[in-house]
Amino acid sequence: MHLKAIEAHMKQNGRLPVNIKVILEGEEEVGSVNLDDFIAANKAALAADVVVVSDSAMFARGVPSICYGLRGLAYFQIDLRGSSTDLHSGSYGGAVANPAMVLAQLLAQMKDKGGRIKIPGFYDAVVDLTPEEKAEFAKLPFNEKRWAKEIGLPKPFGESGFSTLERKWARPTFEVNGLLAGFTGEGAKTVIPAVAMAKVSMRLVPNQDPATTGKQFEAYLKKIAPKTVEVKVTHMHGGRPWTTGFDNAWVQAAGRAIEQGFGRSPVFVREGGSIPVVSTFQEVLGLPSVLFGIGLPGENAHAPNEWLDLGNFHNGVLASAYLYKELASVR
Amino acid sequence: MHLKAIEAHMKQNGRLPVNIKVILEGEEEVGSVNLDDFIAANKAALAADVVVVSDSAMFARGVPSICYGLRGLAYFQIDLRGSSTDLHSGSYGGAVANPAMVLAQLLAQMKDKGGRIKIPGFYDAVVDLTPEEKAEFAKLPFNEKRWAKEIGLPKPFGESGFSTLERKWARPTFEVNGLLAGFTGEGAKTVIPAVAMAKVSMRLVPNQDPATTGKQFEAYLKKIAPKTVEVKVTHMHGGRPWTTGFDNAWVQAAGRAIEQGFGRSPVFVREGGSIPVVSTFQEVLGLPSVLFGIGLPGENAHAPNEWLDLGNFHNGVLASAYLYKELASVR
Repeated sequence: MHLKAIEAHMKQNGRLPVNIKVILEGEEEVGSVNLDDFIAANKAALAADVVVVSDSAMFARGVPSICYGLRGLAYFQIDLRGSSTDLHSGSYGGAVANPAMVLAQLLAQMKDKGGRIKIPGFYDAVVDLTPEEKAEFAKLPFNEKRWAKEIGLPKPFGESGFSTLERKWARPTFEVNGLLAGFTGEGAKTVIPAVAMAKVSMRLVPNQDPATTGKQFEAYLKKIAPKTVEVKVTHMHGGRPWTTGFDNAWVQAAGRAIEQGFGRSPVFVREGGSIPVVSTFQEVLGLPSVLFGIGLPGENAHAPNEWLDLGNFHNGVLASAYLYKELASVR
Repeated sequence: MHLKAIEAHMKQNGRLPVNIKVILEGEEEVGSVNLDDFIAANKAALAADVVVVSDSAMFARGVPSICYGLRGLAYFQIDLRGSSTDLHSGSYGGAVANPAMVLAQLLAQMKDKGGRIKIPGFYDAVVDLTPEEKAEFAKLPFNEKRWAKEIGLPKPFGESGFSTLERKWARPTFEVNGLLAGFTGEGAKTVIPAVAMAKVSMRLVPNQDPATTGKQFEAYLKKIAPKTVEVKVTHMHGGRPWTTGFDNAWVQAAGRAIEQGFGRSPVFVREGGSIPVVSTFQEVLGLPSVLFGIGLPGENAHAPNEWLDLGNFHNGVLASAYLYKELASVR
């Protein structure tokens, strides 16, 4: 998309309206373990005014979008041990703590019935949505019933007092990503597991910090854990949340470019997932980012039969070409 | 052990003091699926006065024991579904119920902090230990600290107000036998599982009934389950608890036989596990059982390097020979 836009400028004008530096990241799907170091080691070469990332989606077909916020992440593994080996539930049941049950009790204490996370201090740094943002979200063409049906939900659920879009984009979460204990094959085995494991992660929103949140989580977990089991917490990885204002000049420039490319002014959305490098650009290089993507929901990203809408691709090429011109005008 | 005792009677007296019928069960470790039907189909052939089962253990080395109570069992699998496929925790986290978290919340509601089971009606049929039984248990040479150390417990845990032996032998339990949901491999995956599974089982004590307990459990689970997930409960298997009085004439006869075989009168113990056929003998044939076993704890039953103490085997042969004589005297 960007390559086509560059070609068009060169063909039409013989030059680009802005200087362009390209970073190609080939490790994003395996954790981007070298990207942060590369950026830190090449600060001078990467000096710029703004970063353009096209790794975001349109809100819906016909609704071009600019993403102005991403959630961060803090991911942990919890390992509990209750005894040195698995025990027979007849011979020992009732007289020993069952680590699978203790795990369930600990996880259940992470949220209240209204879906609010009970880790002390967890919400302290959370920047609430402004009334303007809430109003913008509410205007988006989002059909909650259809959304729930598409993913097979019996009923949506989330933190009381927030809409589905607010919950997905702008509220932090606590999710259980995996559970494993004892006998999980077909049939029955009367075992008291020696160990129980959970993978858990929190999506973070501005201005939560993964390290601070991680400490709060660990402290709370260790406080509520009974002395009947050994508890081990492993920090897997984390990423900072990111947001930029609607009124940022670069974002406004991108908005004008999209309007010219798609014949329609963009909506401003957030994304519930994480693009950790966007925070790295901000923190290491001091650079704002413009998230300017044309993917559609349902294009099977990362899955078999991934596809791309050609009309959006065409409009995306146009919008990219206009983007360089609009970015030049900000300077 | 019994074969040697029979040989001894035949060699010494040329005849046995009682008639003996033998049932050899080859399927006990795979669920005894044919045994109940066999017994029901052969009532007349199996008519008798008392059943002797040698599938129980001595309380400790040098402490011959007669087991007068067994716990029953009710085993279930719980399957929850929250969405039609696994979901990305960034794109959906916070806006959908996570079945792994719901499972944890449901399991946590099965017990209170004191280890008491919260299923309504669960304790209704439970026969409390008599003061005499409690006194007998308290006299047994049981070292809780050593027991906990041997199985690597940081700290014992069980229902408030009961000793470890009371919890293991005479109180019903609710145990999580297995947990499985989402990503359980090495590393991290930001998934909201579509499904979550638990295997759970309850050990039952006289006069709890597995069918009644199962209904109470299912009704409670369905009552507390939120409408955000689909809940499926599968009944895996069950068995009735069993007990007989200390003062039963057959049990007293077995006690005299053990005293003659081991030079020491037996202690009366219960067993936390289940031998479902003992209930079948009682219900289908109307027969009392005497549990007359000489295994030692720590003999690696069902495990590699299983072994048997030869001194106990020798005394067990003697005790079995005396048993036939003592049983004959009951008639």
